[in-house]
Amino acid sequence: MQVSTLVIVGVGLIGGSLGLAAKSRGLVRRVRGVGRQAATLARAQTSGAIDEGALELTAAVADADMVVFCTPVDCIARQVVAAAPFCPPGCLLTDAGSTKAEILRAIAGRLPPAVAFVGSHPLAGSEKRGPDHARADLFQDRLTVVSRAAWTDAAALERTCTFWQALGARVQIMDPDDHDRALALTSHLPHLAASALAGVLPAELFELTASGFRDTTRVAAGDPSIWTGIFAQNRQAVLEALSRLGARLGQFEAALRAGDAATINDLLAQGKKVRDALGN
Amino acid sequence: MQVSTLVIVGVGLIGGSLGLAAKSRGLVRRVRGVGRQAATLARAQTSGAIDEGALELTAAVADADMVVFCTPVDCIARQVVAAAPFCPPGCLLTDAGSTKAEILRAIAGRLPPAVAFVGSHPLAGSEKRGPDHARADLFQDRLTVVSRAAWTDAAALERTCTFWQALGARVQIMDPDDHDRALALTSHLPHLAASALAGVLPAELFELTASGFRDTTRVAAGDPSIWTGIFAQNRQAVLEALSRLGARLGQFEAALRAGDAATINDLLAQGKKVRDALGN
Repeated sequence: MQVSTLVIVGVGLIGGSLGLAAKSRGLVRRVRGVGRQAATLARAQTSGAIDEGALELTAAVADADMVVFCTPVDCIARQVVAAAPFCPPGCLLTDAGSTKAEILRAIAGRLPPAVAFVGSHPLAGSEKRGPDHARADLFQDRLTVVSRAAWTDAAALERTCTFWQALGARVQIMDPDDHDRALALTSHLPHLAASALAGVLPAELFELTASGFRDTTRVAAGDPSIWTGIFAQNRQAVLEALSRLGARLGQFEAALRAGDAATINDLLAQGKKVRDALGN
Repeated sequence: MQVSTLVIVGVGLIGGSLGLAAKSRGLVRRVRGVGRQAATLARAQTSGAIDEGALELTAAVADADMVVFCTPVDCIARQVVAAAPFCPPGCLLTDAGSTKAEILRAIAGRLPPAVAFVGSHPLAGSEKRGPDHARADLFQDRLTVVSRAAWTDAAALERTCTFWQALGARVQIMDPDDHDRALALTSHLPHLAASALAGVLPAELFELTASGFRDTTRVAAGDPSIWTGIFAQNRQAVLEALSRLGARLGQFEAALRAGDAATINDLLAQGKKVRDALGN
């Protein structure tokens, strides 16, 4: 795969890493970053993540072969619909958002026929933000989910998969609703639980935390506005995941109240079995 | 501080690290490990964590200056009471258990007058087990809580603090009930939440986890029997902590149901503030 002009909208951790990865793998001739702040674009350019910066989305996509939206999930659909009419025919649009169904619903039927959008979600990231944390190997050996909606163009789907694979990622194609339900359990619920654990800790106990607390709550350092957008877009699935967690915590609670050590041990053993299966 | 014969009961991660730390700092003349399995003692001896192994607790403490119990919390009090009559006068006994109040209650009034016990809890550890994961720097710059019960001997308390400081630890003296309530929030509740998050993840979604899930659930790989003992010993405080978490998750749930993005953002911002304060 060879991309002449790759436009990356949002040059934070994900967008910056995308530029570094595409350039280091010789996948692109030119990378243009689009952002709202000239300073961030300048930092991304200095780090080599992009070749040039642009503040105006619609102008920036005029000669793009491919545009990847690495902006918060609640901005993506609006930006895609706004940019698409200014893209050249054959241009492929994709994204890196943590939710898929709402984005695809908001885009469906609103693109010019010669421009395709395929939803993507690289399962890579961090609680850190900004192009300064970007890494060329962020997607290496990580899974990227590519979403197939009813209206997804087959050739565009394949090109999108090829693109992520060229960046070193493994690719799995999923229905967007399945993706969102899965990610509610694997990502959105853990974030919510981590935030809740951190949120109930009084300041006078900070000194009494150790690595266990820090690991368990690490993701809670993520940007609140980014995650508020994710929760809003995946509300129903997150509520269902939360209900599963509540039921499980309720089992622990009942066993604790009853002094039922055997049940507590069983519950912990089931959790350990899952965690052991995931590796480090 | 100089210890002639240090006896470590339980040569797992904590006990093994204690031996390595004491020896590497020239704090002890001889370290004797006590365990139930000759093979584990042999591994600890090979790694240099102990100089010699012993299978019989009461015989092993006969010439001890200091005995540290690094066994599961539900074994410590029984072992302390069993060993104390066989310790020489002036011997100092302490432990490394994650709970303190129950252990101290079970020991109170059951020791010979010439033998002192002071409860300790080094806030260091890992989901890993066994002497092969022991590290000489495990306690370095970490906090060790030393418990002061109503009956704690002042000189023994001071010697215990000096001992942990000599291993590189920072020391904080706390009432055992305060310790247990604090650790319920900083350690026991996160463990329970991590286990519950892992426990509700179906096997078909393992592939869709990333570093966020792995961080948040890392401690769930801990030994279930160890943690069942901890939860049993700190039942009331864990139930109170669980109730705080439940209330917080309830606030998230209500805000999600209401589509109240401002409240979700506030809750996340509060969690981030706490997590940011803790550092990496």
